[in-house]
Amino acid sequence: MRILLYRADGNTAPWIKDFADFLPEAEVVVWRPGIELAPCDYAVLWTPPQDMLADLAHVKAIFLTGAGADAIMKYAQAIPPHIPIVRLNDAGMGMQMAEYATYAVLRYFRRMDEYEAQARAGAWLQLEARDKSDFSVGVMGVGALGSHVIEALRPFGFPLRAWSRTPRTLAGVECFHGADGLDGFLGSSRVVVCMLPLTPETTNILNRTNLQKLPQGAYIVNVGRGAHLSDPDLLPLIKSGHIAGATLDVFRNEPLPAQHPFWQEPRVTITPHISALTLRRESVEQIAAKMRQHMRGEPVADTINRDKGY
Amino acid sequence: MRILLYRADGNTAPWIKDFADFLPEAEVVVWRPGIELAPCDYAVLWTPPQDMLADLAHVKAIFLTGAGADAIMKYAQAIPPHIPIVRLNDAGMGMQMAEYATYAVLRYFRRMDEYEAQARAGAWLQLEARDKSDFSVGVMGVGALGSHVIEALRPFGFPLRAWSRTPRTLAGVECFHGADGLDGFLGSSRVVVCMLPLTPETTNILNRTNLQKLPQGAYIVNVGRGAHLSDPDLLPLIKSGHIAGATLDVFRNEPLPAQHPFWQEPRVTITPHISALTLRRESVEQIAAKMRQHMRGEPVADTINRDKGY
Ligand SMILES: NC(=O)c1ccc[n+]([C@@H]2O[C@H](COP(=O)([O-])OP(=O)(O)OC[C@H]3O[C@@H](n4cnc5c(N)ncnc54)[C@H](OP(=O)(O)O)[C@@H]3O)[C@@H](O)[C@H]2O)c1
Ligand SMILES: NC(=O)c1ccc[n+]([C@@H]2O[C@H](COP(=O)([O-])OP(=O)(O)OC[C@H]3O[C@@H](n4cnc5c(N)ncnc54)[C@H](OP(=O)(O)O)[C@@H]3O)[C@@H](O)[C@H]2O)c1
Repeated sequence: MRILLYRADGNTAPWIKDFADFLPEAEVVVWRPGIELAPCDYAVLWTPPQDMLADLAHVKAIFLTGAGADAIMKYAQAIPPHIPIVRLNDAGMGMQMAEYATYAVLRYFRRMDEYEAQARAGAWLQLEARDKSDFSVGVMGVGALGSHVIEALRPFGFPLRAWSRTPRTLAGVECFHGADGLDGFLGSSRVVVCMLPLTPETTNILNRTNLQKLPQGAYIVNVGRGAHLSDPDLLPLIKSGHIAGATLDVFRNEPLPAQHPFWQEPRVTITPHISALTLRRESVEQIAAKMRQHMRGEPVADTINRDKGY
Repeated sequence: MRILLYRADGNTAPWIKDFADFLPEAEVVVWRPGIELAPCDYAVLWTPPQDMLADLAHVKAIFLTGAGADAIMKYAQAIPPHIPIVRLNDAGMGMQMAEYATYAVLRYFRRMDEYEAQARAGAWLQLEARDKSDFSVGVMGVGALGSHVIEALRPFGFPLRAWSRTPRTLAGVECFHGADGLDGFLGSSRVVVCMLPLTPETTNILNRTNLQKLPQGAYIVNVGRGAHLSDPDLLPLIKSGHIAGATLDVFRNEPLPAQHPFWQEPRVTITPHISALTLRRESVEQIAAKMRQHMRGEPVADTINRDKGY
């Protein structure tokens, strides 16, 4: 078996080592521009360079080293539709998302952002405690990662909401779905955690119209993709107090440009796309197992549905 | 039944209302200096004023509106030993402590304190992710509140340690106890959450000698009492990097005086004693139930052991 590997950062050695552990029968070939390739069975990559697309048309399946499909969907036209594109399912990212979202929700619920600001100003002042029944958390996208976030928040007793494309049932969670369910979801979520995949339907979903449907004093946690949020729509709603704060891990342009107004807004908390990092060993282990599935002729789980876009 | 109520803040009306709900047969008398008292069955208070001590010698039991015993133990000599002093057990504080400790631990584990500082400086830089197996959390004091903290941290998969006075067994937690167990506990706890009661044995327990036994780069979360921590011992260890950060909710003098050096140290996070507030209704409900227990002649749970001091 021959695997074609591409890493934008050029750091391929540890991936080759992990494939040697989990799939010793495989030969791993590192893609570079102009390479003369013997036929490869599988490709492993995140965003392929333009020059690589022709080579991708000849593999049996493509395995992404991330949970999203948006990076590859830009090139989907160049990849024949019979070639499955397979994304990671959790692979250690669910726990990381649970940590990040729980941190952000507890921070806002317990007003730790305000206490931090007070402490910097040398002020000792107890703020009114919040009522948990009034602090519902709505998770947009309850797939592999979003469902993990729901489970992590559950023991803390926040009223929970979920929004998905198709109907879902989650014990103790008020579930909404589809375009028709969006208003009900937004109107009853004091905190919105966005964990959606980026598709034409979800691009700019956190725009002015939708952000205004959130309750007064709502909070945003965006760990999906930068393009889910309309940056210029968020800022005036933060200034007016309708949105009390936002914790953003993903941005339209990363790194977030130095002149972007988010840097100057204290109620926007910025992290540099670290909410859920790809864990290499977990990922290689999962990809190796899926390659074996494919070789046995079995359907491979987490194959992207190109019509849905995720 | 007659209850003698004292509130330092003078805000007694809501307490009287809650007692009317949970113990309608009781008459609540508010203590004030010089009051002529008909005999009272029970007293409800936190720290009694000096003038009140004589009246306390005549009640059948004293019910504290907090979880600690340290405030009343200063006056214990004035209160005849046959009068039970009863503290709150959890009464909604366990959940609050779980939220606070989980927030602080996740913040340090995910390096959110460093990301906040970076963001204020306009810097976009991914820091190395931490290894959870190297991020053990040790809880000092695993009684009503500490055990709730342990349960909240468990789903996140941190290696857990506990330290108590007497031997305890907690599933999946490495348990230490007594003076002999302290070094082993400290040496294997990357984060220490102090939830101890303040007694002669635990005063200054987080002193230079003990803080030095923590692993390099350790973190402190103090939600016990200010006097558990030696402030002048902590600061040089923070400056040297041995202690990477401290989240402190309690202080020897509260409000923390304006000239205290903690205000100037960015690696010390200060909150104004808000980690677990007394929830009035939950507390009155619990106290009312315990008064009924006492009237029936049953032993009252959570009676302070005056020899142990908690
Ligand atoms: N920030 C980071 O570091 C990072 C890391 C990894 C992933 N991510 C992001 O997280 C996303 C989610 O990953 P995942 O593995 O959980 O994906 P997933 O398992 O495919 O789940 C996607 C969820 O979104 C819902 N959804 C999709 N389109 C929708 C629409 N138009 N309206 C309503 N709901 C819709 C799906 O609904 P159904 O249940 O009906 O299908 C599903 O619940 C990724 O796509 C990526 O953008 C970010
Ligand atoms: N910051 C706040 O807002 C706030 C609010 C409420 C309470 N508190 C603090 O939290 C403390 C704990 O409350 P709790 O209700 O959990 O008390 P608890 O149920 O009495 O538990 C106390 C724990 O500390 C242990 N302990 C006591 N003395 C010790 C010693 N010398 N060495 C080792 N372990 C010792 C006990 O060991 P054993 O299990 O062997 O008895 C027990 O595990 C209170 O006393 C108070 O100081 C703070």
